[in-house]
Amino acid sequence: LIEHGGTQARAVGQIAFPKSGQAYTVGLTGAPGAGKSTLTAGVVATLRATGDEVAVLAVDPTSPFTGGAILGDRVRMQEHALDSGVFIRSMATRGHLGGLALATPEAIRLLDATGFPWVLVETVGVGQVEVEVAGAADTTVVVVNPGWGDAVQASKAGLLEVADVFVINKADRAGVDETRLDLEHMLDLASSSDTDWRPPIVASVASTGDGVGDVVAAVGDHRQWLEAGGRLEAKRAGRRRAELGAVLTERLTERVRALEGGVALAQAEEAVAARRVDPWAAADELLASLD
Amino acid sequence: LIEHGGTQARAVGQIAFPKSGQAYTVGLTGAPGAGKSTLTAGVVATLRATGDEVAVLAVDPTSPFTGGAILGDRVRMQEHALDSGVFIRSMATRGHLGGLALATPEAIRLLDATGFPWVLVETVGVGQVEVEVAGAADTTVVVVNPGWGDAVQASKAGLLEVADVFVINKADRAGVDETRLDLEHMLDLASSSDTDWRPPIVASVASTGDGVGDVVAAVGDHRQWLEAGGRLEAKRAGRRRAELGAVLTERLTERVRALEGGVALAQAEEAVAARRVDPWAAADELLASLD
Repeated sequence: LIEHGGTQARAVGQIAFPKSGQAYTVGLTGAPGAGKSTLTAGVVATLRATGDEVAVLAVDPTSPFTGGAILGDRVRMQEHALDSGVFIRSMATRGHLGGLALATPEAIRLLDATGFPWVLVETVGVGQVEVEVAGAADTTVVVVNPGWGDAVQASKAGLLEVADVFVINKADRAGVDETRLDLEHMLDLASSSDTDWRPPIVASVASTGDGVGDVVAAVGDHRQWLEAGGRLEAKRAGRRRAELGAVLTERLTERVRALEGGVALAQAEEAVAARRVDPWAAADELLASLD
Repeated sequence: LIEHGGTQARAVGQIAFPKSGQAYTVGLTGAPGAGKSTLTAGVVATLRATGDEVAVLAVDPTSPFTGGAILGDRVRMQEHALDSGVFIRSMATRGHLGGLALATPEAIRLLDATGFPWVLVETVGVGQVEVEVAGAADTTVVVVNPGWGDAVQASKAGLLEVADVFVINKADRAGVDETRLDLEHMLDLASSSDTDWRPPIVASVASTGDGVGDVVAAVGDHRQWLEAGGRLEAKRAGRRRAELGAVLTERLTERVRALEGGVALAQAEEAVAARRVDPWAAADELLASLD
């Protein structure tokens, strides 16, 4: 329901909101092929070993044409498929920009409200929306691989700013030390103050489980740091503010679509398609008719 | 001016619009490290050899914190830096979602209006917004590398649907045939009709120039196909319609920010931050005050 949006999603969201606020959310992001799904499966296993139940949202940017998520990576989660203490759900965008950014916090709140102490959010891509989604967690884990340039690519994709923990996964390959140095160097350049959190850099081989415990420990360290001095509540408040902005945009867009039963928008679209007027001028004319 | 938006950008856009419509736009996208910049430089060289002038927009998703684009890849464009027939510009988002999607068509129109017959748009990431930006060209070139899984990753990122031409770059590495088969297979699955354009798959080694001529030829074939039967004009009209939608959202968001001189939004943000109300309910209350 939440994925599809609309009135029913809203009803679910209203029920979930007052019951939410207890779950700790962890975002996992990084380039395709970095091993995020395998690492996520390892993190789930480690958390489950403590007895905690875990929910996983796998956020897939999907085609506006097919509307379907490719679930190949989910195969790696199969070891948890029969564990009733683990909930796994792939979320797709249903082809509308901003859809993921709106649906993900609602989906997290629902999982939170149903009592999962951990909600993991894994994203497939490393674009603007995906980084935003993964960055909207309490702790964001950025997964890179050893090798020249991977750290620079992570920085380019805006991952440096959202990272609370860096994981150099596939650390049985050559280049781990170089990648670590690159990351340290970039963190040196980016760091604004000594009292800020400095993301630790953890090496792992998720496919064998090596280092996965260290990743979970690093998440725990960051959580402890956030919980001290009200930082966690401030971070969450900031997220809710940002969500309000996204919801406002969505609601306003719905209003424009509904103007004059959709006729006004259709006429403006026609004028723009025919190059009689540029899109900005058409938008301003249309909005003048709202007043 | 266009990158920063606002009134001055609008003034430039109004002047550019009636003079635009002549340039042919080519989007280049693909995962970080696929060799897009090197390929773009090769495409520029090939087009320049015909005497045509070329504009290149390199669209970088940048950090909301630093606001600066990492220009490392631009080094590969240095061979063209002293050529007055080539204009190269890196565009950043300035930290606001949707910024790229709005600024890129305006920037393309300006370059178009100033007389460039070719505008190349290269994106750094492969997220939702980046794919949207690169897909909003007359011909979109998707760059992948040889090797297991790259085709699947491209599909996941939504690249299959925007691709008009596939390039397997770094084709001196092992796995070209497998990647080609993977892509052919996915195109078979995705193809809806025999009369649709089927993206050709071209192999290149952009660093040596091998195959770059074939890439340009494939772009030319697609252009010819689009120009036949009014397909190009229909595609561009569809893009302008989509742009109108994006502009409307932007304008409406500005209105909400301005409500009661910003006080209403600040109060709603405060209520949401303090968890007194959920973001959707706060948005609906705020919008009720617009009426």
